[in-house]
Amino acid sequence: MRRIEATHSRPRKGHRASLEEVDRDIRSFRESSGARRLVLLNTASTETYQKLGDVHETLKGFEQGLDRDDDRITPSMLYAHAALRQQVPVVNCTPSHAVDIPALLEMAEEMRVPVAGRDLKTGQTLLKTILAPGLKARALGLAGWYSTNILGNRDGEVLDDPECLRTKEESKLAALRGILEPELYPELYGDFVHRVRIDYYPPRKDNKEAWDNVDIFGWLGYPMQIKINFLCRDSILAAPLALDLLLLSDLAQRSGLRGAQDWLSLYFKSPTVKNGRPIHDLMAQRHAWEDGVRRIAGWRNNGRNGNGRNGKASRPR
Amino acid sequence: MRRIEATHSRPRKGHRASLEEVDRDIRSFRESSGARRLVLLNTASTETYQKLGDVHETLKGFEQGLDRDDDRITPSMLYAHAALRQQVPVVNCTPSHAVDIPALLEMAEEMRVPVAGRDLKTGQTLLKTILAPGLKARALGLAGWYSTNILGNRDGEVLDDPECLRTKEESKLAALRGILEPELYPELYGDFVHRVRIDYYPPRKDNKEAWDNVDIFGWLGYPMQIKINFLCRDSILAAPLALDLLLLSDLAQRSGLRGAQDWLSLYFKSPTVKNGRPIHDLMAQRHAWEDGVRRIAGWRNNGRNGNGRNGKASRPR
Amino acid sequence: MRRIEATHSRPRKGHRASLEEVDRDIRSFRESSGARRLVLLNTASTETYQKLGDVHETLKGFEQGLDRDDDRITPSMLYAHAALRQQVPVVNCTPSHAVDIPALLEMAEEMRVPVAGRDLKTGQTLLKTILAPGLKARALGLAGWYSTNILGNRDGEVLDDPECLRTKEESKLAALRGILEPELYPELYGDFVHRVRIDYYPPRKDNKEAWDNVDIFGWLGYPMQIKINFLCRDSILAAPLALDLLLLSDLAQRSGLRGAQDWLSLYFKSPTVKNGRPIHDLMAQRHAWEDGVRRIAGWRNNGRNGNGRNGKASRPR
Amino acid sequence: MRRIEATHSRPRKGHRASLEEVDRDIRSFRESSGARRLVLLNTASTETYQKLGDVHETLKGFEQGLDRDDDRITPSMLYAHAALRQQVPVVNCTPSHAVDIPALLEMAEEMRVPVAGRDLKTGQTLLKTILAPGLKARALGLAGWYSTNILGNRDGEVLDDPECLRTKEESKLAALRGILEPELYPELYGDFVHRVRIDYYPPRKDNKEAWDNVDIFGWLGYPMQIKINFLCRDSILAAPLALDLLLLSDLAQRSGLRGAQDWLSLYFKSPTVKNGRPIHDLMAQRHAWEDGVRRIAGWRNNGRNGNGRNGKASRPR
Repeated sequence: MRRIEATHSRPRKGHRASLEEVDRDIRSFRESSGARRLVLLNTASTETYQKLGDVHETLKGFEQGLDRDDDRITPSMLYAHAALRQQVPVVNCTPSHAVDIPALLEMAEEMRVPVAGRDLKTGQTLLKTILAPGLKARALGLAGWYSTNILGNRDGEVLDDPECLRTKEESKLAALRGILEPELYPELYGDFVHRVRIDYYPPRKDNKEAWDNVDIFGWLGYPMQIKINFLCRDSILAAPLALDLLLLSDLAQRSGLRGAQDWLSLYFKSPTVKNGRPIHDLMAQRHAWEDGVRRIAGWRNNGRNGNGRNGKASRPR
Repeated sequence: MRRIEATHSRPRKGHRASLEEVDRDIRSFRESSGARRLVLLNTASTETYQKLGDVHETLKGFEQGLDRDDDRITPSMLYAHAALRQQVPVVNCTPSHAVDIPALLEMAEEMRVPVAGRDLKTGQTLLKTILAPGLKARALGLAGWYSTNILGNRDGEVLDDPECLRTKEESKLAALRGILEPELYPELYGDFVHRVRIDYYPPRKDNKEAWDNVDIFGWLGYPMQIKINFLCRDSILAAPLALDLLLLSDLAQRSGLRGAQDWLSLYFKSPTVKNGRPIHDLMAQRHAWEDGVRRIAGWRNNGRNGNGRNGKASRPR
Repeated sequence: MRRIEATHSRPRKGHRASLEEVDRDIRSFRESSGARRLVLLNTASTETYQKLGDVHETLKGFEQGLDRDDDRITPSMLYAHAALRQQVPVVNCTPSHAVDIPALLEMAEEMRVPVAGRDLKTGQTLLKTILAPGLKARALGLAGWYSTNILGNRDGEVLDDPECLRTKEESKLAALRGILEPELYPELYGDFVHRVRIDYYPPRKDNKEAWDNVDIFGWLGYPMQIKINFLCRDSILAAPLALDLLLLSDLAQRSGLRGAQDWLSLYFKSPTVKNGRPIHDLMAQRHAWEDGVRRIAGWRNNGRNGNGRNGKASRPR
Repeated sequence: MRRIEATHSRPRKGHRASLEEVDRDIRSFRESSGARRLVLLNTASTETYQKLGDVHETLKGFEQGLDRDDDRITPSMLYAHAALRQQVPVVNCTPSHAVDIPALLEMAEEMRVPVAGRDLKTGQTLLKTILAPGLKARALGLAGWYSTNILGNRDGEVLDDPECLRTKEESKLAALRGILEPELYPELYGDFVHRVRIDYYPPRKDNKEAWDNVDIFGWLGYPMQIKINFLCRDSILAAPLALDLLLLSDLAQRSGLRGAQDWLSLYFKSPTVKNGRPIHDLMAQRHAWEDGVRRIAGWRNNGRNGNGRNGKASRPR
């Protein structure tokens, strides 16, 4: 973070000292609030892009990095580490890596704590992951997707910095690629241009506005265009997701689940998953979510007929 | 049809005489073309709205209607009847009823002929059935959906007539209702306003342009808006669907399927189905289509895992 | 007016009796308010389209029409007549004819009362009369202009009636033709298609939204498109115009002006003018307004240099 | 220019040697073409932003800069200098400074050569200078104007470089400020946010697309929004301007005019003018153009009545 001045910040100390401090904060909050179960929700501003390296690979390497104050360990990783140590589930609502590095996912498995993330899917990417599967289902090719965002709050101020924007751009492109599978359909999706802009624009205040131009092509290569203008409210779209995630990650922990919770991908731009490729298609994520809820509830998963063509949950037996 | 002058038309005769004539046309085409298998694709202009009545209820009643030249039997129904009699599959690309009346569906079952329809889902409704399930998956409420279309070809000229527009408007609303299920989610979808306009606008020529304004509401009832401007090409979107349907309805017949082909719902605004409610959600239609293809191919349907989170078809064993 | 139920209405009587009643209302308001000078602002809902006939041609004919209760004399005309009789200036903010018929303009001249109208230029037409002169200044041709409006208040409810819409459509087309002069530039403007829709759409409430698609063509006939989406607020755009008109028509009367006030065209979609063609180009209207103010103030009109390339008013000497 | 590889370029030499070479090119073109009168139209790609300094201030200083190969003298300035020396009028269609520096304007006056520039007003800025005066005429305040452009040709490739974009951004803001006069109307225009993006987006090819979001406010500060999506063709909008400028700058020279031609401001984003502030309002520019043509033709300028409220030129006497 570079463009804004933080008003609530800790003096910079060594990693181990910082960890102790966060640890104390969590304990004191547990005491003062009287809460028996906690969840750590990371909703801080996006951190500057941090390329992943060896220090993030294994828990052992990460611990050594803590000892030598390795500066590739960011504040959001410290918070995640402190929470996991106390078996507090971690939900990462931001594009920062935080818990989404192999080292901390390993720790989450070991400590038997469920974690979920990365980057709440609220505005433009939500629409992308709704629209792209539809284009693919009709075999409509994609020549280009240009997206611009204007927002007037602190989030916009941070993302106006090209370094902070980079994580966001990469995750949006990954979502499109994950859905369209250019490797399987090179003629339709092998060569599309994807550009994303995020601009700080104070008149928009806490609202957010996205304008997308999608260049598609159909039969015989004929070009067509879809333009989408989404006048949304960031906090209004994000708040219910945060609340769901709070409740569901606590539920996951009580159900004995641990590590990355793939079934919570529905809420995120860059889903943190156990193995292999994340799912981005919103409807496929919705199905995975329904399966997850059913599994936890001990309901019998009775196949697609069960979760219904209408999206109705099947009844427990 | 009222606003345009037909240049290729038959003199109006009694129903039985017309049927004989169409019958002869089909036979002579079969002969002159040398084709062994035929499919009747109805791509004529939309007929004036025809309220369904008792004459359309049963095959027996329909046959009596033919005898007495009942004027509730439209040309598209005559064509469908003639084709079914020769065991030619019927695909209805238009909003007209044609084969989609109980009487002719009964005939299709009896004659062992597959049929599919109604109204190719190409432009605005395609986007509606892509977007609406996404809104529902996020529990975003709908206050209103305003849609306007401008098109400059003969199709637009016909639909500029309020009577012809009516069928289209009803089918678009049905699609939204079918997806959103206001009866299950009255707080979110119980009270939305839906308006559709179709305007003949010659400068657009054979292209079609849709502008949609979608008023949604989120957490605490806060309003948000989505505007979609789709600059599309009607024939380019429609042609590959017609070709798919030609091949697949022929395939269905060779596979022994008969009557309404629910698995072909993917292509239509008002799917003709065997029983109960049609599916409108594009992704659900896509799943049904994949199941249909697999069933025909004798592949084993191994559940959702099988058709893959990536939409990849499972391999035959 | 047909689609809505009026809650404040007078029992229908003969014209002369109605006139007396309005006359008494004006007098009693003058007394109770203590105001020495009055202005009648017509802001009622649009009346059903009334074709002008001989009864509207001359004051004498109009008076005879009053005597025989001619039903081509509408309520807004009665109000205008009553106001003029008491030398109260009349401002017509609506598309209804009201004072804008030859008979009442004659009366306004005779009674030495200034009048102004017709139909406040607030939303879409405002943009049309800003944009069209710009296209013309660049010799860009016009192939078509499609306009749709959605609004959720009573005004929208009234205009959803095709009969009431008609006046509005005609005045919007007249504005475009007046600016573009197809008779002078037939190759550029001789053949454009103009369509206007006004739809009652309750979710928009008192706000109004316009979507315009403008098909233009340039060098060698190449087509281009301009789309404008105006999210406006009808009352907010209208209120300051009404206040200006109240003050300026009173000022006009105190300055001895009478009859149609051409210099107030700036505020209206269908300007009421003394002779010949109304001006629609917003910037030309603005110049006329400045000239009018200067004339009244007795300032010296020192030509275009005087009103300044920046639109600054020249100083009085 | 940095992002693209030039395929037609001269080896870099000293300024004086370059000047001689251009001089020879002009002479040889004059000869080979047989043309008696020439005009230099600069339509090269935008140069990297060059801050003006003392070397650009006076002709004397500029000549000294040539002698010492001052690297603040750009290729477009060299071309302009060579043309002026041969009394060839210079028209600068690009945002580069070229002839628009005090030193070369001085030379143009001395050599009695008319010059015109800077940056053809074709797409988004054209709309800005049409729309902004309209907002001002209605006293609608401006909170912000966000503009994004996507274009796929070489012009876009060049402007994707932030350094090259800078000149363009400054000239667009200057146009808005020049029209709205924040110093006179600080409550309406004293505090607006203006952002411009230009993105290279290959799928758009030689076409250009602009999306503008304009945040305005009316009576009591109520916010409203105007969105404009302009699908234009850069070359089609530019070519007739270039042709006009060719003919009119030649006409100017034959009429004995010299130095900056203010009356040609109509064509440019950053008009090159003799003294003081340029005019940006398109309609005011149009009036100045008409005056200029009339003056050259020796017609009598008979005031605003003369050039007509309809924009019709007055007849010569």
